[in-house]
Amino acid sequence: MSLSIAHLGPPGTYAEQAAVLYVNWLTKTTGTEATLCPYPSIAQSLQAVAAGKTQLAVVPVENSIEGSVTMTMDALWQLDSLQIQLALVMPIVHSLISGASGLDTIEKVYSHPQALAQCQNWLGQSLPNVQIIPNNSTTEALQLLKQDLTAAAIASSRAAQLYNLPILAQGINDYPENCTRFWVVSQNNAKFEYHINNLNPTYSSLAFSLPANIPGALIKPLQAFAELGINLSRIESRPTKRSLGEYVFFLDLETDIQQPKMQSALADLIEYIEILKIFGTYGVLSVNTLES
Amino acid sequence: MSLSIAHLGPPGTYAEQAAVLYVNWLTKTTGTEATLCPYPSIAQSLQAVAAGKTQLAVVPVENSIEGSVTMTMDALWQLDSLQIQLALVMPIVHSLISGASGLDTIEKVYSHPQALAQCQNWLGQSLPNVQIIPNNSTTEALQLLKQDLTAAAIASSRAAQLYNLPILAQGINDYPENCTRFWVVSQNNAKFEYHINNLNPTYSSLAFSLPANIPGALIKPLQAFAELGINLSRIESRPTKRSLGEYVFFLDLETDIQQPKMQSALADLIEYIEILKIFGTYGVLSVNTLES
Repeated sequence: MSLSIAHLGPPGTYAEQAAVLYVNWLTKTTGTEATLCPYPSIAQSLQAVAAGKTQLAVVPVENSIEGSVTMTMDALWQLDSLQIQLALVMPIVHSLISGASGLDTIEKVYSHPQALAQCQNWLGQSLPNVQIIPNNSTTEALQLLKQDLTAAAIASSRAAQLYNLPILAQGINDYPENCTRFWVVSQNNAKFEYHINNLNPTYSSLAFSLPANIPGALIKPLQAFAELGINLSRIESRPTKRSLGEYVFFLDLETDIQQPKMQSALADLIEYIEILKIFGTYGVLSVNTLES
Repeated sequence: MSLSIAHLGPPGTYAEQAAVLYVNWLTKTTGTEATLCPYPSIAQSLQAVAAGKTQLAVVPVENSIEGSVTMTMDALWQLDSLQIQLALVMPIVHSLISGASGLDTIEKVYSHPQALAQCQNWLGQSLPNVQIIPNNSTTEALQLLKQDLTAAAIASSRAAQLYNLPILAQGINDYPENCTRFWVVSQNNAKFEYHINNLNPTYSSLAFSLPANIPGALIKPLQAFAELGINLSRIESRPTKRSLGEYVFFLDLETDIQQPKMQSALADLIEYIEILKIFGTYGVLSVNTLES
């Protein structure tokens, strides 16, 4: 059996790096092999799964410095047919990649807006006068660097290797504890028994909208979980896109959705909300597990 | 008296448009005049106020389609010395600006990532094969358009006028009800009596971090307000940047902070939280008021 996995491209992005770690774990654990399929955006990676073009997508959900990847949340809510198979937490170490002879000859720095934001203090101190140019991915500008020796890009050291480009500075992220959580996502009727067999489902993710904006409207849904001792590990609001001030709330809960107390909380929850979408129950792979 | 007001530049951005509307209202109401000061980023606009280089900044907070402007939230939390003076809600109507003879000769579209995201369906349908290039503001690429007739930019119709460029398509945002809330921000010891004299303070904004991640840890702070009938109009989580899974929560509450019930809720709140920052109490200007 061979799987196809969509991710944000071109090759060398952190999403591809996460997909490679996942595939290595998968092959070692189950013998399953996989092909990686780069897409030009995160939304298109998820649309590829929804349309059946690939079986899985590996998408970033949240970075410890820059927060939620809103495109992932919005696409999950809109596409309405996807399921989270597992979560994967990966440290992010940014490198400054350039053919320049030194920092003083660099005139512009390219990268994805999240990576630029994660290195903003370093850029302000080490390259205060350069032009900062956002791209659709960390690797989009790497092909330009060979011709333009005044340009640099922020990407992974793995990307520098793939494109055969020199690293001028390593670990330039402002916070050393920088890491990103990714989700491996399938269609919601897909079965991947080996995820369940090899990882305990310790998280559940869902989202809901509220029928009315009155004092306490958000508290009752949250109480449904808190009263049963279910820990909320994350809450994120996104606009419904209907009118300013109306939100969809995304919750990650530290429990398996099959647990009786979770089923009881969900039965309570639906009394207070408008639309509920459950994105699945899943385990977490840490990079230590992946690289062992 | 003349005020200096920082905003995201170059001229023609929606932040500048909001600043102009604010200044028109201010001049009409109080006779005060103002100078606009464009800065290359939202963070730098707020830093200008914190450093006393300008007296006010007008910054976007939240768009009805793309959600929170995370840079504004993070800068408010970090700079620690700013106060919201008023909120301003402005409809956003995007135009496609280009010197091209028609849509079929356009090869690339530039804009701010928020504007690109707000027109993504229109772009997918009307210009499916163009290259999408994110910029630091909606107006950054406008100067390029006169030389490059295969390029287009998404910005306001006012920007097209300012740069003397043709509009190829108007109202290209995917959702017609697109609007953005801005905040007018000062240093926290600054007094602007005319805001209070001319607008009832109907909102209060604050942010807090939590001491521990246990079931119900977020509910108690929210209950402090709900139990006194204070409506929460917005909750937004941002990473603390210490470790993945630790958040700062930003709340907008529909009440004047001077009200006894709000003072009582705050006294209750501090029992449950780690760090509390109050960003002020303020009224809202709608565009109808501004343009009348």
